[in-house]
Amino acid sequence: MRQERINRIKRVLREDHLDGILITSLENIHYLSGFTGSDAALVMTETEGYFLTDSRYTTQAGEEVSGFELIEYKKKINGLSDLIDGLGLKGIGFEAQHLTYGAHKELTEKVSTAELLPLDDRVRNIRAVKDHEEIGRIKRTIDISSKSFRENMWRIKPGTRESEIALELEFSMRRNGADGISFDTIVASGDRSALPHGKPSEKRINKGDFVIIDFGVRYRGYYSDETCTVICGKPNRRQKEIYQICKDAHDRTIASVRPGKKAMELDAIARGWIKDAGCGAYFGHMAGHGVGLAVHENPVIGPESEDVVEEGMIFTVEPGIYIPGWGGVRIEDMVLVTGNGCEVLTNLSKEIEIIE
Amino acid sequence: MRQERINRIKRVLREDHLDGILITSLENIHYLSGFTGSDAALVMTETEGYFLTDSRYTTQAGEEVSGFELIEYKKKINGLSDLIDGLGLKGIGFEAQHLTYGAHKELTEKVSTAELLPLDDRVRNIRAVKDHEEIGRIKRTIDISSKSFRENMWRIKPGTRESEIALELEFSMRRNGADGISFDTIVASGDRSALPHGKPSEKRINKGDFVIIDFGVRYRGYYSDETCTVICGKPNRRQKEIYQICKDAHDRTIASVRPGKKAMELDAIARGWIKDAGCGAYFGHMAGHGVGLAVHENPVIGPESEDVVEEGMIFTVEPGIYIPGWGGVRIEDMVLVTGNGCEVLTNLSKEIEIIE
Repeated sequence: MRQERINRIKRVLREDHLDGILITSLENIHYLSGFTGSDAALVMTETEGYFLTDSRYTTQAGEEVSGFELIEYKKKINGLSDLIDGLGLKGIGFEAQHLTYGAHKELTEKVSTAELLPLDDRVRNIRAVKDHEEIGRIKRTIDISSKSFRENMWRIKPGTRESEIALELEFSMRRNGADGISFDTIVASGDRSALPHGKPSEKRINKGDFVIIDFGVRYRGYYSDETCTVICGKPNRRQKEIYQICKDAHDRTIASVRPGKKAMELDAIARGWIKDAGCGAYFGHMAGHGVGLAVHENPVIGPESEDVVEEGMIFTVEPGIYIPGWGGVRIEDMVLVTGNGCEVLTNLSKEIEIIE
Repeated sequence: MRQERINRIKRVLREDHLDGILITSLENIHYLSGFTGSDAALVMTETEGYFLTDSRYTTQAGEEVSGFELIEYKKKINGLSDLIDGLGLKGIGFEAQHLTYGAHKELTEKVSTAELLPLDDRVRNIRAVKDHEEIGRIKRTIDISSKSFRENMWRIKPGTRESEIALELEFSMRRNGADGISFDTIVASGDRSALPHGKPSEKRINKGDFVIIDFGVRYRGYYSDETCTVICGKPNRRQKEIYQICKDAHDRTIASVRPGKKAMELDAIARGWIKDAGCGAYFGHMAGHGVGLAVHENPVIGPESEDVVEEGMIFTVEPGIYIPGWGGVRIEDMVLVTGNGCEVLTNLSKEIEIIE
């Protein structure tokens, strides 16, 4: 499993005729080496792999990381330049979307002869297609989050505060085995549901409110991400209509997922449907994003994305309609691309959920 | 309050003869504008301030941000280049320790004539000295975390799992008003306490174990960070000795904090004491770090730091001694620098805490 991941990096190394590749993003470090701490770097050559970290993580790295030579640094920049100079590496690729301008400059000045060469999206994309182990872990994150949501659905009723629902849902997720939550849980009700990223407030839920709940868990490094919009009481005609437009956009997009499809076409299906229904002004964000060792990773399902769907990718489909002063709906599932379509991984119903 | 913060940026602008400063780090965006969402940018000129965000946050920004002109972008890079070109800005400073190499390159290519100039540590340092409002918020984070720790001390006893202590402490922190936790709570007992960043495991606490607990909360954007090491049962001679060395290093460092002191001198006091006691090999990390809108920010209290202590700074003092295969101790407090010394903000006792 790990070897195939390392091979993906080596492919980039060979294609670009590089002597080495420097990996600084924690997600890629985790992906390639198994390390779960918060500070480290990898240097990979055609034949060797070096794992660098500081004294806080030496013991942990010894337990988690195999197939790499372990190096402890006092200061990362010195550890890296010593290694690069010692190995006599010349052309070294780096993660241009991760390394800061300042760190790049400092490292460039520190190394004797090596040249640091920005790597393009191929390095960001190495994690886009998930392997068997990853799919298993992601399914586990989803099991934890769905179970926790079900345990707390009864709370969504008139009089409950948004903040209470968020808190109890988070507690359930942690009790059910999550290592942490994916992001601050979003609970936004009534006209606040028009905020795509509404922070849970002290507002109490009223009868007739839409309630957007966007939540997820982290488990062994992997994330889940899902949004349910429920209605507290009977929906009125306008609410039914808006929900159905969003649901149809969501379903039609999912029905179109298959290998070879352009990500921007998927986005266009969701966006086009909502626009044709007269709600184009109320859907501003992208239709989805990859999920894995980061909550947001490639592929990007957006209007300007150049990504192409491949078997094994896992991403969200999450159209939304947000009408200021009135309320909003977002429906978000995670899908796994199969040979000829996709499997919806999340398992909470997205039919309009009426809680009375 | 906010105006003084903005003045700090304008001082840099003037000193470097810049036409504008681009702020991309969320902490500085929060600091300068009050915005608490997860995606935005600021452009500040001598006379104007522009706040840019995407549609997910337009409404929220309208509520949180004042004194800036609000601009909604579909794609950040386009929003920024349109604004910069539209204003005809030439020399624009940016946060070199935050902006990625890739984003810098893309923006440089997109703008017509503007030149992006890396700003040094002065911009990272603008938050190092805390104002009245910040000190109040940080004190509140500490109140929440101390109260929560006290509520859970009884759990630290033989038979309790590390993971259970972490979980219940986190629940208490959230119940007591935290918006979130500062980082995954560290609970490491027995020989696992030699891991400076030990993840809570299923290990049960045994009689005679050192238990390191490193924890903190986030409250209205601000963080707390504190470490207690307690002993479950009577300490043996070696444990008493090691604890005392660490405690003396901690106390002596705190006693030396005052405006004008070099941060590296503070680090040297802790490090020197531990080294003279024969434990130099067991203390690898830095002696402390600033805490505020980020858990780790300036000043850096480390051997190579060029920071100088100023009144109003808030940072941790956290020496540790980690003996592989045996166990470890870390003692961490947060201090606020006063006119002639410092006030210890954290309020849990750091005398050896024997739980029987």
